[in-house]
Order: sequence, then structure tokens, then C-alpha cells
Amino acid sequence: MNPVVPLVGIGVDVHAFATEQDVEVEPRPLRLAGLDWPGQHGLLGHSDADVVCHAACNALFSAAGLGDLGSNFGTAEPEWKGAAGTVLLAEAARRVRAAGFVIGNVAVQVVGVRPKIGPRRAEAEAVLAEAVGAPVRLSAATTDGLGFTGRAEGLTGIATAIVFPVS
Amino acid sequence: MNPVVPLVGIGVDVHAFATEQDVEVEPRPLRLAGLDWPGQHGLLGHSDADVVCHAACNALFSAAGLGDLGSNFGTAEPEWKGAAGTVLLAEAARRVRAAGFVIGNVAVQVVGVRPKIGPRRAEAEAVLAEAVGAPVRLSAATTDGLGFTGRAEGLTGIATAIVFPVS
Amino acid sequence: MNPVVPLVGIGVDVHAFATEQDVEVEPRPLRLAGLDWPGQHGLLGHSDADVVCHAACNALFSAAGLGDLGSNFGTAEPEWKGAAGTVLLAEAARRVRAAGFVIGNVAVQVVGVRPKIGPRRAEAEAVLAEAVGAPVRLSAATTDGLGFTGRAEGLTGIATAIVFPVS
Repeated sequence: MNPVVPLVGIGVDVHAFATEQDVEVEPRPLRLAGLDWPGQHGLLGHSDADVVCHAACNALFSAAGLGDLGSNFGTAEPEWKGAAGTVLLAEAARRVRAAGFVIGNVAVQVVGVRPKIGPRRAEAEAVLAEAVGAPVRLSAATTDGLGFTGRAEGLTGIATAIVFPVS
Repeated sequence: MNPVVPLVGIGVDVHAFATEQDVEVEPRPLRLAGLDWPGQHGLLGHSDADVVCHAACNALFSAAGLGDLGSNFGTAEPEWKGAAGTVLLAEAARRVRAAGFVIGNVAVQVVGVRPKIGPRRAEAEAVLAEAVGAPVRLSAATTDGLGFTGRAEGLTGIATAIVFPVS
Repeated sequence: MNPVVPLVGIGVDVHAFATEQDVEVEPRPLRLAGLDWPGQHGLLGHSDADVVCHAACNALFSAAGLGDLGSNFGTAEPEWKGAAGTVLLAEAARRVRAAGFVIGNVAVQVVGVRPKIGPRRAEAEAVLAEAVGAPVRLSAATTDGLGFTGRAEGLTGIATAIVFPVS
């Protein structure tokens, strides 16, 4: 067989949008795909709730067989609590390489009604690729008003990744 | 490293089924996986709302780093508005090749309660593979009555694809 | 082109949790990722409803172009009805190899609020890898209280797989 055999991974992450009431108590800026989105209600979570970065982390850990976001940056490693999505993503990529893999690419799709990704796709892909050290593709889809994403209650990030064991 | 390094992509698409009321106003035939499904209520959308073809397009664009359905066939390119799913899929594959990639395969799963894919899988896979110019796998799953797919409010297509840069 | 060209697949599976009322009628133990989870309400279904094994089967069949769980173990082959998830997974892997493929790996993520996968990940991955005869990665995510997985009505398994035609 081929000496460079790729492995694939999958990753999902979901966060709820802050409500008007949440935002009255404390402003919650939107962080998504490694970018700030001024004027948009943010997502809830102990971290920045960046579902794109989190789904990408999950896909990378999955491909490399290193667990998931929770097992890597959870209660056992409190120093990562609240870290920015791009910081977690860069650290995830570092751990995948330290475990003996070359990263091929990561692909993430945001599912939800806002923000509009298209106009800032290139900017986001550059920030994400910088964090991973490999190409990251970012796309978006809506769910035609259906489900929690259709009702704008939250966003789903869904990702896949491919890695190659260093031979 | 291997001179032929694959890249992977992910793609989701969701459309709502036309309701009895929608259909009284205007018949809405079901188009799915490049096929007509006589006697079935269709999906809503400006296009034929073929979630299988749309998810496949998203996965191909994602793998090749070419954005998504909206950025390729959206408001900036009105000539594609309302095009059949298979027409969009063939054009997506053409753009992926024009950008310098060989397409390995696409795999799509339809999530929802109807129609039954199994009896027409071979037929659908042939039509989809003809559009893409590479193997397309089509599978199906239900959600055990849960969520909008379980309540037959709509269908989700979820896809992955693998492409190879032409070296 | 490379003589060993990988193919990718995708697979989803969803099952509802048994309710208190269901469990009063008949105990329903939880089977997930090939393991027993004592003390946890199980999932409903004619089989053991192991969404991890079922999603993995779907991803393998998808990659190899062999249909899906329903077409392989459905009404046409009643001898598989009610079989354990790991038995189905081992048989799926056997069919994929019989069709001329080497299995690279499978990656599955469980989406839902319980059980906690982390503490038993290594154990589950070992059982799943034994069934597939190739590495299986298992990860988990919650949906922040949103949707049917957030309300603990059920679990979603989502998987990808990579296979190589035997040249």
C-alpha cells in the first residue's frame, strides 16, 4: 500500500445565540471563523463560542485520533478555558503535528442564518489557515427556516479534515 | 510528501417540503438526487431545491476551496437562478476541474422520511455520476421521528468530497 | 494519477432515547459505541440502536458505493434484524473488503448530552477498531441545549470513512 495513507476526521460544534435579554445583562460580541463581527449578537459559551474554530478542532483531533475539544481543552486543562477559537485551533494543529501527522486540509461549513459569510470568506480563510498551517475552506448554508438554525437560535459548524502520518 | 495529495470537503443543504396549502396554490413536483419523484410533494426554493445535488456542489466547492453554492450561483450570477440541481452539479464539477483538480468521488446522504431512496439508488447514482464525471454515492437515513426531518418538514443533504490537485 | 486513489464516505444515524414510560413497560439498556452503559436509559429501535456503529456502517458503505444500512441489513436480509451494532459494523467492513477495498479509517462523532464519552473513549475505540479491522476515532459534542439532541430526546451519530481500491 501507499506509504502515505491519509486519515479522515469529522467534527461538529453548536452554540446558541445570546438573546436580547442576555445582551442587556452583558454585551456579547460575535466571534466566528476567527473574525470579529461588529454589530452582531454573539454566541453563548464559556469560550468565544466560535463554532467554526471548534468544529475544525474536532475534525483535526478526530482525524489524528486525539479525542475531541472537550478531552483536549476541558476541565483537565483549565488553562485553555475561555481561549479564543483561533488559539485553540493553532494548539490543536500543533498537537496533531506533535503526534506525527502532516495536515492536508480542513473544510468547515457554517449552518445558520447569520452572519453572511461570503463577503468575508477570503479574510476568514486566511486567518484560519494561518492558525492551522494548512488550507482551511469555509462555506455556509441556511436551513430554509427549519430547526434551531433556521429559527436563528444558534449556529452549527460541521467540519472534515484529512491528515497524513509522517512516514 | 506524496505528489498527489488529496483535499477533502464538506457540504450541507436543507430545504422545506411544500405544504398542502403551498401545493394548492401551485403544484410543486419533487426533484431529488437528479430524479423526478411523481406523486410526491416537492421541496420549496427558488431552484428545484434538490438537496442532494446542492449538498454535493457544496462539498465539491469546499474541497477545492471555491466557496459555496451561494457564492458561485447566487445573486452575482443570476443566470444560474432556478437551474436544475444536476445542471448546477455539472457546472460545479467543471469549475473544480478548471481550478486544477481531479475529482475523486462525492458521497451524499439524504436525511429524512421520504422518498424511499433504496429502490432508485442505482438510477440516481448514475445520473449524479454523469453530472460530476466521477463516482457519486447516495445513501439515506431517517431520524426516528426527531427534529424537522423526523416531522417530515424538510430534507437535509449532507455530503463529503475528495479532490486531487493536478500536479 | 496515483494508483491508490482514496474514496470518502459520509454517514449519519439518529435514534430517540427511551422515555420513562417506555422503560416502565420494558427496560431498555443503553448500547453505544459497542459498549454497555449501565444505569443509562437506552435508545429506541428494532436493533440495539447504536448510532455510533450505525453511522460508521453508513460511512463505510458510502465510501465503497455499497448503499446504506437499510439496503444492506433491511427487510431484504431479515437475518440481520436486531443484530448488535458491532456485529453489523464487522459485517459492513467485511462487505467493503469483499468489494475490493482496503479500509483506511472511520471517524464518528456522537452529538448529544449523554452519556459522557471521554472517560470510555479508549475502550470504545478499541472495540470499534476490532470490529472494523482499521482505526476508528470516536469523539463527542453537545448542542448547547438546542434541537432534539440538546433536549436529550435522542442522539445523532455522524461519521466519515476513507477506503482505497485494491489495485
